[in-house]
Amino acid sequence: MAAQAQSRQPELRKDAVTGRWVVFSPARSKRPSDLKSKSPSGSANESSDNCPFCAGNEHLCAPQIFRVPPDSAAEWRIRVIENLYPALDRNLGRPDGGGESGEVLGGFGYHDVVIEAPAHGVHLSDLPPREVGDVLIAYRKRIEQLAAAFDEIKYVQVFKNHGASAGASLSHSHSQIIALPVVPPNVSTRLGSMKDHFSRTGKCSLCELPLSDLVIEESTHFISFVPFAATFAFEIWIVPKIHSQHFHDIDDEKAADLGRLLKLMLKKISVQLNDPPFNFMIQTSPLHTTASELPYAHWFLQIVPQLSVVGGFELGTGCYINPVFPEDAAKLLREVNVP
Amino acid sequence: MAAQAQSRQPELRKDAVTGRWVVFSPARSKRPSDLKSKSPSGSANESSDNCPFCAGNEHLCAPQIFRVPPDSAAEWRIRVIENLYPALDRNLGRPDGGGESGEVLGGFGYHDVVIEAPAHGVHLSDLPPREVGDVLIAYRKRIEQLAAAFDEIKYVQVFKNHGASAGASLSHSHSQIIALPVVPPNVSTRLGSMKDHFSRTGKCSLCELPLSDLVIEESTHFISFVPFAATFAFEIWIVPKIHSQHFHDIDDEKAADLGRLLKLMLKKISVQLNDPPFNFMIQTSPLHTTASELPYAHWFLQIVPQLSVVGGFELGTGCYINPVFPEDAAKLLREVNVP
Ligand SMILES: Nc1ncnc2c1ncn2[C@@H]1O[C@H](COP(=O)(O)OP(=O)(O)O[C@H]2O[C@H](CO)[C@@H](O)[C@H](O)[C@H]2O)[C@@H](O)[C@H]1O
Ligand SMILES: Nc1ncnc2c1ncn2[C@@H]1O[C@H](COP(=O)(O)OP(=O)(O)O[C@H]2O[C@H](CO)[C@@H](O)[C@H](O)[C@H]2O)[C@@H](O)[C@H]1O
Repeated sequence: MAAQAQSRQPELRKDAVTGRWVVFSPARSKRPSDLKSKSPSGSANESSDNCPFCAGNEHLCAPQIFRVPPDSAAEWRIRVIENLYPALDRNLGRPDGGGESGEVLGGFGYHDVVIEAPAHGVHLSDLPPREVGDVLIAYRKRIEQLAAAFDEIKYVQVFKNHGASAGASLSHSHSQIIALPVVPPNVSTRLGSMKDHFSRTGKCSLCELPLSDLVIEESTHFISFVPFAATFAFEIWIVPKIHSQHFHDIDDEKAADLGRLLKLMLKKISVQLNDPPFNFMIQTSPLHTTASELPYAHWFLQIVPQLSVVGGFELGTGCYINPVFPEDAAKLLREVNVP
Repeated sequence: MAAQAQSRQPELRKDAVTGRWVVFSPARSKRPSDLKSKSPSGSANESSDNCPFCAGNEHLCAPQIFRVPPDSAAEWRIRVIENLYPALDRNLGRPDGGGESGEVLGGFGYHDVVIEAPAHGVHLSDLPPREVGDVLIAYRKRIEQLAAAFDEIKYVQVFKNHGASAGASLSHSHSQIIALPVVPPNVSTRLGSMKDHFSRTGKCSLCELPLSDLVIEESTHFISFVPFAATFAFEIWIVPKIHSQHFHDIDDEKAADLGRLLKLMLKKISVQLNDPPFNFMIQTSPLHTTASELPYAHWFLQIVPQLSVVGGFELGTGCYINPVFPEDAAKLLREVNVP
């Protein structure tokens, strides 16, 4: 179907991956190129005084899980630690089976923090591409540990909050990993939607190439684009070109390649949108599932700049209003130069 | 099942109505009674200068649909007008059938604004109970008009944004009505979940009385409570005691009764939570459906104070972290006195 870049009438689009209807509503915004963040990504602790994530303040942190490089004599570049205020409790009795059908489940689970750099004020996108890749490899390692140790963990959500209005309470560059005893709703919905597409067409919805006017950039192993029915203005997906269910199957070479592309995308939104708060999420498949069980599943990394506030319409309907057509966002992001 | 008010361990709960898993995580917050809004509900246009919604500035507004009282000689108390920047377009060709199965749909639909009072700075909860009821009757009337005129409108979402971090761009008290050509995802999910419960138990999930420790207040026709698996801290539902699918079947007497209870709930969250930004949404059933088609459906009004920011975990999983157990929130709201 032809993307209607020229049309400036509102349009509803349904995404083949998320299964979500999104209202594209150009009347709701100024020109896409004028859309900038009103609250650049400043966070709570701008100063490094007493920042628990700074090198030298390790004693202020919850226990370490591992560090990179592992040698404890050397200076670390990345630390994976326990979250001091965990949403789930690793010490709780594991839930006794049943799982998703019951109505209450003990809050067993893991909640970790990945400190992405030792120095305050060095953001993920400031790191050399290979070191961004090393952060991705740290995610992989932690997921592998969780998958190997606990059958009860059904899904691992890796995410990053950058900037106060994206939820970040600390500005020192970090991301989080939450391991859940249930498959969360967005994941079930996404897999259901991809399965439908697969049954109908025989194809994986993410192996099909996106329309060329939605593409931002390609690397050896990945492609980045604005999804056809992007939920949020300037949302970006980075997808492995080769069909793959699980993020944690990524190898070191692909992680370095993804690191380079992720850094570039973060730089592009920073320049185009005035250093916006953003989130990124790794959208992967449930643990303990095989490629033959989920032939339609394909992982990706989703980047969401936070440019607007969710209101009652979105809360009520689960339907989002996006003022920027994806093909317009992609063009701007393709063309913006980063220093 | 017994609500575990004493337990201070994290817990996952699944709501029988929304079908959503929520992580209750006491470690993530201070004591529930200390939870206050950090950004009381101030909005963009604090002053009434040039406020398009003020009496006398009607010429700054998009066209009126109707006013209350209808007599145009008298002073109005409520105005229902077109939205100047509509998300959907009432003048677009109506979508040619197909609907939800296709991937693109013309953005046909309606987007109206309800101005709840003529004077700037008079909020909904400042109105006498009966006038709050009149606002509800204005919603009903507009939904009836839309339902009678257009078979293509599948669902009408009534919602209110109060305060900038709840999405409000204007502070003059108002709410919005969006009429959609599709049944939105949260509604399908909710109806699916209520249908499951009905098939399993033979009962409507909202006709069953909530646990007494979740109840905040009862009126003649309605009951207000914190739902067992509240997605948001201090979320409140107001539910008609008599089984009813559609909000717009409410009669004047029930609307006045609901107006009183809604006002009380808004006052309670204002006192308890320091005038927080909030949204409310009417969660009703699709248009053009009958009671026999949806025997399990029961409408309600949902109030959500905005006390925290959505982060990458919620965006990624669709699963929310609520730091306040519903029974604790209900106790505080039950006990707080309003002036
Ligand atoms: N000394 C220490 N040692 C170890 N860990 C420490 C620590 N001091 C603080 N932490 C942890 O570090 C994490 C920092 O995370 P973020 O700033 O990205 O967001 P946070 O989880 O606070 O909440 C945001 O993200 C979540 C999940 O998306 C949303 O629920 C929420 O509303 C939003 O604000 C916090 O989880 C905190 O508990
Ligand atoms: N002169 C005039 N005549 C008629 N109408 C006028 C007008 N001037 C302004 N309006 C309309 O009045 C409405 C006021 O609504 P709100 O302030 O509640 O939120 P808004 O819709 O801006 O966006 C919030 O709610 C939506 C829906 O939840 C979210 O998408 C969004 O991010 C969030 O900020 C706006 O929709 C605006 O278009």
